[in-house]
Amino acid sequence: MTTATLRAGIDLGGTKIQAVVCDDLDRVRGEFRRPTPTEGEPADVAAAIVEAVNQAALAAGVDPSDIAALGVGSPGQIDVAAGTVSQAGNLPGWRGVYALGSALTDALGMPVILGNDVQVAVMAEMELGAGRDYGSFIGVFAGTGVGGGVVLDGVLWRGRGAAGEIGHMVVEADGALCPCGREGCLEAYAGRAAMEAMVRRRVANGEHTKLLKIMAKKGKTRLASGVWAKALKKGDPMAVELIDRAVWAMGNGIASAVNLLDVEAVIIGGGLGLRLGQPFVDRVAEAMRPHLVMAMHPPALHLAALGDLGGAVGAALLVQDHAPRRPGPQPVTRPVHHIAPAD
Amino acid sequence: MTTATLRAGIDLGGTKIQAVVCDDLDRVRGEFRRPTPTEGEPADVAAAIVEAVNQAALAAGVDPSDIAALGVGSPGQIDVAAGTVSQAGNLPGWRGVYALGSALTDALGMPVILGNDVQVAVMAEMELGAGRDYGSFIGVFAGTGVGGGVVLDGVLWRGRGAAGEIGHMVVEADGALCPCGREGCLEAYAGRAAMEAMVRRRVANGEHTKLLKIMAKKGKTRLASGVWAKALKKGDPMAVELIDRAVWAMGNGIASAVNLLDVEAVIIGGGLGLRLGQPFVDRVAEAMRPHLVMAMHPPALHLAALGDLGGAVGAALLVQDHAPRRPGPQPVTRPVHHIAPAD
Repeated sequence: MTTATLRAGIDLGGTKIQAVVCDDLDRVRGEFRRPTPTEGEPADVAAAIVEAVNQAALAAGVDPSDIAALGVGSPGQIDVAAGTVSQAGNLPGWRGVYALGSALTDALGMPVILGNDVQVAVMAEMELGAGRDYGSFIGVFAGTGVGGGVVLDGVLWRGRGAAGEIGHMVVEADGALCPCGREGCLEAYAGRAAMEAMVRRRVANGEHTKLLKIMAKKGKTRLASGVWAKALKKGDPMAVELIDRAVWAMGNGIASAVNLLDVEAVIIGGGLGLRLGQPFVDRVAEAMRPHLVMAMHPPALHLAALGDLGGAVGAALLVQDHAPRRPGPQPVTRPVHHIAPAD
Repeated sequence: MTTATLRAGIDLGGTKIQAVVCDDLDRVRGEFRRPTPTEGEPADVAAAIVEAVNQAALAAGVDPSDIAALGVGSPGQIDVAAGTVSQAGNLPGWRGVYALGSALTDALGMPVILGNDVQVAVMAEMELGAGRDYGSFIGVFAGTGVGGGVVLDGVLWRGRGAAGEIGHMVVEADGALCPCGREGCLEAYAGRAAMEAMVRRRVANGEHTKLLKIMAKKGKTRLASGVWAKALKKGDPMAVELIDRAVWAMGNGIASAVNLLDVEAVIIGGGLGLRLGQPFVDRVAEAMRPHLVMAMHPPALHLAALGDLGGAVGAALLVQDHAPRRPGPQPVTRPVHHIAPAD
């Protein structure tokens, strides 16, 4: 195999940058993860992406110049044609428009294709992961926020460009305040940012929890998914209660989506989903059941198969989608030989 | 024009049977409406349908033998191939399976095609009504219950066969009991059956309302849409409160669906929607807004353009869908020259 068929993918998140180098069978040949800069400006984020791509190439044992192209899954508003990202509020100094594509091309010397971070993760599950065997599914990614995507007849449904906002389906009328500013959204109950805000409010009000102690012990400044998992394991009542609440909200919101679309499957991922794993998925399935019109014929529920590499692998798939480099028919599904576990 | 191109359509509801006779430009040439039998068995309902078709033919000035085929939009579980309807709980003695198709063919001497009542109403709006100019929309029909349909890329999305249950999206966690037995469904707040049950409970508890008096004065035994409209006009506090609640629930549920699918438009119909009309649609649009991710770019909201003939006209369209009788390309949209007002 020549190295000319290598593609790189970046999952640009608010807390970490995940890079992969994939070959033409979509096998992950190398990967690298680093924190997202929390200060500075978009050019600092671009520099961190460049470093991550170079390190992933090193891990793959190849030279960055052997990589044909880079796909980037980004938050914010993406202009694919212009190669720009705007309004990426979770990234430092990124309220305006930044030409991320040309900055990366200049530094790496390769074509760069941008895509929406959640959409590429859904596409990765569709083409290579837990969605491979389904014509229709809903992807729900519970991490800092709750993102999603709807695949119908094997195609990501984009609507007028903003479809898939399952995290902002209303699960409780006049309910909890969501980071988006609206009330009662699924994300207000099942997104880590909203859950952490709730913990901090309750602790400020004199309630007790092990969550913040576990966080400090792990050297974190945020209630990462691993912090929640550990607190659950220790039976911390506040952690148990808030995860119960997240499960309940996921059950409500996903059941509503399933009643509307009657999809074959639901795929649950994101940092929190992956960390809590199959028991979390099973609990969500149970929470959905009382609300399902087709309760006797529920959709299949699966954990995202690509783990926390899904976003980066999906970003690498952008390269194929926008600039097919392999002649002849493409296989419908392709094996993934290396999947790193969720951290 | 020869009469050989005439088609009949039946909208089989829990309270009324609506028949139309349409020509090959989908113009309504004659119509007839009668109550659905409330006692007896499926054969009695079939006889009532036969009478309605014959009366609609009379109104059209044609002989029933001039009608090429009949489409029937029915509640319950439809087996299109077998021509059977089962589990139509709102129809008398109809818990089991009944071969409605062959019963009607035997009596009328014409081919009969069955379809889902809500789906045919959505298809009618898509092909001939308020959905004609949109590639994607959600239809929401608020009547005795709340039914719906999702049109994506100009095609009714059926999922595994049960898609479109917008009436059973959860709008309030652990909320009001729905006639379906689940809790917090949109239909529990915006379906006439649930609203009437609430009124009767509150009156039994000593509360006052003009709703039941208006009902009696109109010679009705149910709180029909016209009863609600009249009570609203008179400013009856319970009617105002429950319609407010229905608007609120519609806003929540439809906003969730729009956040998921980002469709171009929402079309509101059904007995209650049509009777309360554009002011009701405008109030729902306002109630949606606080929950919309794309609040600056909301979908267009429209009242169903075919009024309460939509179900029957949509049923007549089934004849074309399943057995095209006109050679050559079909026009994408066709004019409707006669639309009866909602009653």
